[in-house]
Amino acid sequence: MNALPPDLNHELARVLGDGWLTDPSERLAYAYDNSRRQSLPDAVALPTTREQVAALVQACRARRVPVIARGRGTNTTGATVPVAGGVVVSFERMNRILDIRPGDRCAVVEPGVLNGDLQAALKAHGLFWAPDPTSAGYSTVGGNLACNAGGPRAVKYGASRDNVLALTAVTGAGELIHCGTATTKGATGYDLQRLLVGSEGTLALIVEASLRLTPLPQARGALRAIYRDVSSAAQAVAQLMAQPLTPSMLEFMDSDAVRLARDIGGADLPQEAGALLMIEADGDADTLPHSIETLMAAATVDGLVSLDDAADEAARERLWAARKALSPSLRTLAPGKINEDVVVPVSRIPDLVDGVQHLSREFSLPIVCFGHAGNGNLHVNLLYDPADTAQSARASVAMSRVFALTLSLGGTLSGEHGIGLAKREFMPQAIDPPTLAMMRAVKSAFDPDGILNPGKLLP
Amino acid sequence: MNALPPDLNHELARVLGDGWLTDPSERLAYAYDNSRRQSLPDAVALPTTREQVAALVQACRARRVPVIARGRGTNTTGATVPVAGGVVVSFERMNRILDIRPGDRCAVVEPGVLNGDLQAALKAHGLFWAPDPTSAGYSTVGGNLACNAGGPRAVKYGASRDNVLALTAVTGAGELIHCGTATTKGATGYDLQRLLVGSEGTLALIVEASLRLTPLPQARGALRAIYRDVSSAAQAVAQLMAQPLTPSMLEFMDSDAVRLARDIGGADLPQEAGALLMIEADGDADTLPHSIETLMAAATVDGLVSLDDAADEAARERLWAARKALSPSLRTLAPGKINEDVVVPVSRIPDLVDGVQHLSREFSLPIVCFGHAGNGNLHVNLLYDPADTAQSARASVAMSRVFALTLSLGGTLSGEHGIGLAKREFMPQAIDPPTLAMMRAVKSAFDPDGILNPGKLLP
Ligand SMILES: Cc1cc2nc3c(=O)[nH]c(=O)nc-3n(C[C@H](O)[C@H](O)[C@H](O)COP(=O)(O)OP(=O)(O)OC[C@H]3O[C@@H](n4cnc5c(N)ncnc54)[C@H](O)[C@@H]3O)c2cc1C
Ligand SMILES: Cc1cc2nc3c(=O)[nH]c(=O)nc-3n(C[C@H](O)[C@H](O)[C@H](O)COP(=O)(O)OP(=O)(O)OC[C@H]3O[C@@H](n4cnc5c(N)ncnc54)[C@H](O)[C@@H]3O)c2cc1C
Repeated sequence: MNALPPDLNHELARVLGDGWLTDPSERLAYAYDNSRRQSLPDAVALPTTREQVAALVQACRARRVPVIARGRGTNTTGATVPVAGGVVVSFERMNRILDIRPGDRCAVVEPGVLNGDLQAALKAHGLFWAPDPTSAGYSTVGGNLACNAGGPRAVKYGASRDNVLALTAVTGAGELIHCGTATTKGATGYDLQRLLVGSEGTLALIVEASLRLTPLPQARGALRAIYRDVSSAAQAVAQLMAQPLTPSMLEFMDSDAVRLARDIGGADLPQEAGALLMIEADGDADTLPHSIETLMAAATVDGLVSLDDAADEAARERLWAARKALSPSLRTLAPGKINEDVVVPVSRIPDLVDGVQHLSREFSLPIVCFGHAGNGNLHVNLLYDPADTAQSARASVAMSRVFALTLSLGGTLSGEHGIGLAKREFMPQAIDPPTLAMMRAVKSAFDPDGILNPGKLLP
Repeated sequence: MNALPPDLNHELARVLGDGWLTDPSERLAYAYDNSRRQSLPDAVALPTTREQVAALVQACRARRVPVIARGRGTNTTGATVPVAGGVVVSFERMNRILDIRPGDRCAVVEPGVLNGDLQAALKAHGLFWAPDPTSAGYSTVGGNLACNAGGPRAVKYGASRDNVLALTAVTGAGELIHCGTATTKGATGYDLQRLLVGSEGTLALIVEASLRLTPLPQARGALRAIYRDVSSAAQAVAQLMAQPLTPSMLEFMDSDAVRLARDIGGADLPQEAGALLMIEADGDADTLPHSIETLMAAATVDGLVSLDDAADEAARERLWAARKALSPSLRTLAPGKINEDVVVPVSRIPDLVDGVQHLSREFSLPIVCFGHAGNGNLHVNLLYDPADTAQSARASVAMSRVFALTLSLGGTLSGEHGIGLAKREFMPQAIDPPTLAMMRAVKSAFDPDGILNPGKLLP
């Protein structure tokens, strides 16, 4: 069986029926996530109703057994690894879209619905839900909310937190709470729903979400801008963000990323390319050409090498080829990769990229930066050989220096991936003791016995 | 002197210097706000630094003396009335704009800066801060944040909570906390800053705010649409909100409001006008005409009586005349007015207006609805004679029925004015016991001795 008290096993088997897994081979699939970490849970619950979730949390609380919420385990920080054992609650069977109300720009869903499935259902109504992590096809709305997931579109449409109206959740005390209202405005008590967003399953388990939807734009257009160096590209980013027409995407690649995409990925990019921006606009088909012109003007700064626009979807795909060629190319540099998604104020992007290039030389390790420039949210990819212990040690020191650099620039540890296990030791550098103490007090208010996802987020 | 312990008076006079007021005539100005309520504070503090605020809260906490934050007292709910005595902390001397960083779309301000002064300073940089309460000229950023204030522009640009990046605040324990980062994205620990927004000074005193700014649009255009009845207007609202071009303003007036504006206010409106929408678009000067056409098409539903667009600012002012004529006209109906800003999902606006008209007949009291239709946030104005006790009693029962109606439609008590004293007794109808208990637990985490703005927000 497992290490849980027999009466708990008995009780939860009764509550969950065939949604209570204790067989080690079945549990194994819930032991890891997209981080490299692993730890076997004592049991796995696959609830179908909020009542089951509440009963489970109450039963586990009575025996101080950890409860770890799980969407599809695509997070990169170890946030779903049950490091202290306990019960993993996977929401894979609570995956219904309960209601779509186009007039209210609102959808009501269970937490286990896949982001991609939701988008497909919304498309028929001419709507979408803004969060668009690259993992959309296989990550859940509950997981997106619990990580405050974003994606390239966040520059115009916001991340998960900006696109939630109301949440129903089960606290660590096993209480069902209803946070927020399905209205786009509200000033009625404390905003608990946005507090739950990004809390990584440490405050409450989300059992239903009312999401804020956005009408699908009619058309979109893309630009690829190549710059001599990072500082020219960064100046273009600042200029693009200082005018009223916010791009629907504003992605950046540094010189190493460009070189990799060209030399290894085979992308058609000029030798003098020191940085690249992918810029998109969306909107009304009639006015889109004008929007593209406006963005072209804003992207034109000293140091611009070339500026191409995509006339149609095929051309758009060709422009994106450079970005797509990048990820596989990274793997050819070194078998190991630490990918952190630090975030800085947009004006500090050049300092961040400069500083990272410095660290790359100091530690003799390739570090490649690319990502969501419009939000100052860069993915810093540090490449190393995990089999080489000296290199691994260097890599981890270098990454802690990247964090220190980010913080010194007024930025913070994560823009959208979250903290999980991977970054919790860095939290005291990012957040001062009284504020951390306040976060701990909030945690105790929601989860008095500390049973929800222990060992995550807070140091 | 006052009723405070002499040693506290002594200590705070030392900390605050001439910013410590104990004279009853000086205190009187801080006894009331825009509600009709009044209660004299024991003392008034006018801090100039965050350190003074922290020292004050610590000293008051040690003696369990209430601390009430105050901007300019323009709130309508009694939220700044010191019902339990104590010290009013007015932020009028902490009114500096500390930094404007156009490239980061960010301004850093002290809480006492007036919204209007900030907008004026931002204009020079081609930027604005989205919250635009009608009180902008004489309400503070701190007060706007603490109430989650909105305004007509919120339909496109969001309310205060959607436009804050980071807050520095002093908790009820006198601890200085730093919530959030001045970046437009973040997934690093709990989102305490948005929790403070709308908390009406009951969790912490905001001493600095990093605000999210938006580039000023180049141009704007206005439409006035007149409908046969409320349900046609509501259908137009739904159609306007279901297409991608979000209006920058979408204001509604019901038939009584239209009649008052015409018959008493002298606005030029046709007899058959049963409802009115004021619609605005903003954006690029070149594409604005196209946006106006798009909104005109969306506003055209069965029941449309007339649709006028304003070619210039003067014409725009003329169109707004109906709305401007309304408030003075209301006063001619009855000397007393209860104005509540309930909010419902947009699709429920017709049910709300219908239901309110029913209540108006049932209670024989005029009730006039107008407001921010794009957010479903209507101002329900109940008119009565406060000198007539029977009428006053009827008015208060009728208003509680309006709240019950709103809640039954999936809406909530307040869209932007907040709860304060005025609506706290209705909180248990809006929010269930476990969720209210959770809010109380959060309150205790921030303010363990309950000294911050006691008697407000939570029942
Ligand atoms: C290839 C790839 C690309 C990615 N791209 C992006 C990207 O562009 N942007 C981005 O932001 N992220 C990205 N991610 C990270 C990841 O996909 C997201 O964080 C996603 O939101 C996780 O969803 P999930 O369903 O897999 O959640 P999980 O990984 O299962 O869980 C994530 C966290 O949420 C908690 N949780 C899950 N469900 C609930 C619930 N119902 N209630 C409470 N807590 C819950 C878990 O406890 C855990 O802390 C990417 C990951 C991969 C593998
Ligand atoms: C004519 C008129 C028109 C209005 N129009 C609108 C409108 O269109 N939209 C709208 O939303 N509101 C409107 N209001 C309501 C009101 O103006 C707003 O709520 C405004 O935000 C209050 O700001 P204030 O500076 O006057 O705050 P106050 O009234 O002084 O305080 C409001 C609340 O904030 C708290 N507070 C103040 N400063 C701080 C701080 N630094 N830290 C913590 N808590 C603090 C107080 O304790 C209190 O709970 C209107 C009011 C009037 C009189």
